[in-house]
Amino acid sequence: MNYKMIGYTLGQVLIFEALFLAVPAITAICYFEWTALLSALGTAALCVLCGFILSRLKPQNKKLLAKDGLVIVSLSWIVMSLFGALPFVFSGSIPNYIDALFETVSGFTTTGSSILSGNQLTNMPHAMVIWRSFTNWVGGMGVLVFVMAILPLSGAENMHIMKAESPGPTVSKLVPRVRKTAIILYFIYFVMTMILFITLLFDNVVGSDAKYKMGVFEALCTAFSTAGTGGFGVKPDSILSFSPFVQIVCTVGMFLFSINFNTYYLILRLKFREAFNSEVRIFLIIVATAIVTVSLNIFLTQSVGGASLGEAIRHAAFMVVSIISTTGFATVDFNAWPILALTVITILMFIGGCAGSTAGGIKVSRIVILIKGMFRELSSQIRPNQVKRINIDGRPVEREVIRTVNAYIITFVLIFASSIILLSFDPYEYILQDGSKLVTNFTAVTTTLNNVGPGLDMVGPTQNFAFFSPLSKLVLIFDMLAGRLELFPMLILFAPVTWKKT
Amino acid sequence: MNYKMIGYTLGQVLIFEALFLAVPAITAICYFEWTALLSALGTAALCVLCGFILSRLKPQNKKLLAKDGLVIVSLSWIVMSLFGALPFVFSGSIPNYIDALFETVSGFTTTGSSILSGNQLTNMPHAMVIWRSFTNWVGGMGVLVFVMAILPLSGAENMHIMKAESPGPTVSKLVPRVRKTAIILYFIYFVMTMILFITLLFDNVVGSDAKYKMGVFEALCTAFSTAGTGGFGVKPDSILSFSPFVQIVCTVGMFLFSINFNTYYLILRLKFREAFNSEVRIFLIIVATAIVTVSLNIFLTQSVGGASLGEAIRHAAFMVVSIISTTGFATVDFNAWPILALTVITILMFIGGCAGSTAGGIKVSRIVILIKGMFRELSSQIRPNQVKRINIDGRPVEREVIRTVNAYIITFVLIFASSIILLSFDPYEYILQDGSKLVTNFTAVTTTLNNVGPGLDMVGPTQNFAFFSPLSKLVLIFDMLAGRLELFPMLILFAPVTWKKT
Repeated sequence: MNYKMIGYTLGQVLIFEALFLAVPAITAICYFEWTALLSALGTAALCVLCGFILSRLKPQNKKLLAKDGLVIVSLSWIVMSLFGALPFVFSGSIPNYIDALFETVSGFTTTGSSILSGNQLTNMPHAMVIWRSFTNWVGGMGVLVFVMAILPLSGAENMHIMKAESPGPTVSKLVPRVRKTAIILYFIYFVMTMILFITLLFDNVVGSDAKYKMGVFEALCTAFSTAGTGGFGVKPDSILSFSPFVQIVCTVGMFLFSINFNTYYLILRLKFREAFNSEVRIFLIIVATAIVTVSLNIFLTQSVGGASLGEAIRHAAFMVVSIISTTGFATVDFNAWPILALTVITILMFIGGCAGSTAGGIKVSRIVILIKGMFRELSSQIRPNQVKRINIDGRPVEREVIRTVNAYIITFVLIFASSIILLSFDPYEYILQDGSKLVTNFTAVTTTLNNVGPGLDMVGPTQNFAFFSPLSKLVLIFDMLAGRLELFPMLILFAPVTWKKT
Repeated sequence: MNYKMIGYTLGQVLIFEALFLAVPAITAICYFEWTALLSALGTAALCVLCGFILSRLKPQNKKLLAKDGLVIVSLSWIVMSLFGALPFVFSGSIPNYIDALFETVSGFTTTGSSILSGNQLTNMPHAMVIWRSFTNWVGGMGVLVFVMAILPLSGAENMHIMKAESPGPTVSKLVPRVRKTAIILYFIYFVMTMILFITLLFDNVVGSDAKYKMGVFEALCTAFSTAGTGGFGVKPDSILSFSPFVQIVCTVGMFLFSINFNTYYLILRLKFREAFNSEVRIFLIIVATAIVTVSLNIFLTQSVGGASLGEAIRHAAFMVVSIISTTGFATVDFNAWPILALTVITILMFIGGCAGSTAGGIKVSRIVILIKGMFRELSSQIRPNQVKRINIDGRPVEREVIRTVNAYIITFVLIFASSIILLSFDPYEYILQDGSKLVTNFTAVTTTLNNVGPGLDMVGPTQNFAFFSPLSKLVLIFDMLAGRLELFPMLILFAPVTWKKT
């Protein structure tokens, strides 16, 4: 373990977090929210202080091992969240620290599960609302990728960090240098977010009789949450009371941000054939099939009170994209949907978006590898002497990748099962009319481990996670972090080998 | 494809099925049930007729490819079930053929899920009740293993059949010759079943005020269902109304039959160290942990109406063993248990017993391989240059086995997800007070694919599967067969390559 280098990087991350806090600070000034301003500045000061102390470690040996990369990533996210929760506590918006931590981890991991009730959200200062949404944006592309884009850290070893923070079974450098790749990624991310923000503002041009309008503040927050596929809303009922225009823009937005960012880079370089690789194509097929199934199901069963086919399609498209992109915005309470739609929605939670996007979930590319592995196995059962290689987009998938993907799924299932058992120790009171604790616990773990946001039943879109005990909240916090960092970085913290000196 | 050889073997299987029908036929004579007798004899005659026609194919080339072995196994089980359902229809016990097929497949696959209500079971002729239980027994060790034990089929190729029908990731021949292995297995199976049967009869010696007594008929049926870890009961409330003595005997019985039969062979040969391999030890640990958790949970929450700690432990032990052995007998309606116990029960359904036993589920040995694979991956993430081999009981696990186990899990998940989606097209009326279709469909698939028997909610221990539509029943029939034959033999039927001439 290169402890000095780890400490140094954590210090850098904290200093960057202080910079991020400029967003709520400026907002607080705009809205004259002095308590919120002090909370943001106070936290920033703490970050800078701790950051400078850690940065003074000045490592001579900048070499990072693979495990150092993993540990840096997991500790950075934990430290970021521990500090990021402070403004909520200082400003009194979320007085309980565990709750504030839950909300912050949910933000950074782009989960979007909340412990806030509608009222609490409405009474929150603007500065805190934008901080929530901004954590979604920062977490989407990854904070260390950001640090790498700005700071000239040492060279090749950064790949370990990039690999650990980027979602998906493999990470492809767009250009030979890691730092330049990080800059390109964040540039695409920034530009796309800006376009989304500006498009959302057109809500004021397009007429509608919706309850809420997209002001600059709302559009900015919504753009942050959509781009990070996080799903923290500005209004108590998420996107429901905004105009159909906003809903459609968000649908397109969530969809675009759950596609591999390499695709956009390749499109810019006019390499269309490579851009639309098999992962993107299969993602499109899954989304289209799910939209058709869900819209027909809710239309034919009249589940969105007398809605026309067009409206049913709009709601279905929004919810399908919201869930598969693991954003978690809602335009309807799908808790009340018929069983087929619910089943599809639950399965989509596990699938998630493409690798290399801001989306969570298992990722389409992993699922493609797994399914190809299944077909290979079937064919090798038929002809045991011919074991074929798995090819994707004409290239063979490395043995190591297949092994890691398989281990990923097993690890996922084990964390899932352990979390469900731990949650079932929670003595919370069940308050809904029908449904069950089984569905609540199952979907609570599903939605946090896949970084989606809402689940079903007591954690459905109109409910929140406040009723869970602190222990359960800690379990779900772990799940959100494990989901966002793709399991291994978090698990490695518990392996004694990790902490041995080499 | 060696079509002639496949046809010939199917013919042999049908002739054996005619022999099996002697059990209900003799029972019918004992109880003067003439309709049932005619139904059994009529079916036997049909089996013999079709069996002889198929057997006349007389293959010159007796060589079997791996795929031939798989196809023989899956087709045998399908044909056995198609014919085995006839007595229920002929005797009027289950007039609907799909229902009868469901019940028969549930029997042979040792699932024990039933479409019968308590009343229907009570009114059934003894001959049909024992036929149900006997299908559990035949399916437990496998019908083709039985055929191989009796008939001198050709030599080495039988291994393909044995491999396809025996549960677990690998199959170890006890002795060099497959046929002798089959004979030893069935001998152990038969002797253990007899001991269980005789022990159950002691119920009449041990005094109790239970509602039902174990007569010869009840003891025989219960021994069949327990040995096969099937779980078809003779009484509407399963084992609930029998004495605590019977419940304890069944607990021990279900436990013993879900341990690898090799263990007993090795014990007989005094090789104790090899007998208690890691799979058996881990199985013991899982069972013990689950019993402690569940009994404390139901005792402390007073979920079995004011039961003492001793009673709580008895019920918990019974249910834990019943579920992990995938038998599915019940002494309580665990639907009403608290969430922790329910969660544990649901997870146990997936685990299942040991490889090479009569139990279903994923099997402990597969889970051990998967978890070791996860730890290997973690350690290779920490030290990427050192990829270790997976060892079990001091011996390295073959790459091929690991690959197959991984593919097994993915295939399992895909069949699971597809089944749940197909079930959610079922427009059945939901009738229970609380709970949900999600839980019903989820556990219906869980319990059939793992060959357990009861699920939760509408398919709980006091409910039955009759309310599902014929399509859903066919899906669940497929799941039961896929679960018992460990997925690949059933899937291979759908691969066009399988049917090509080589």
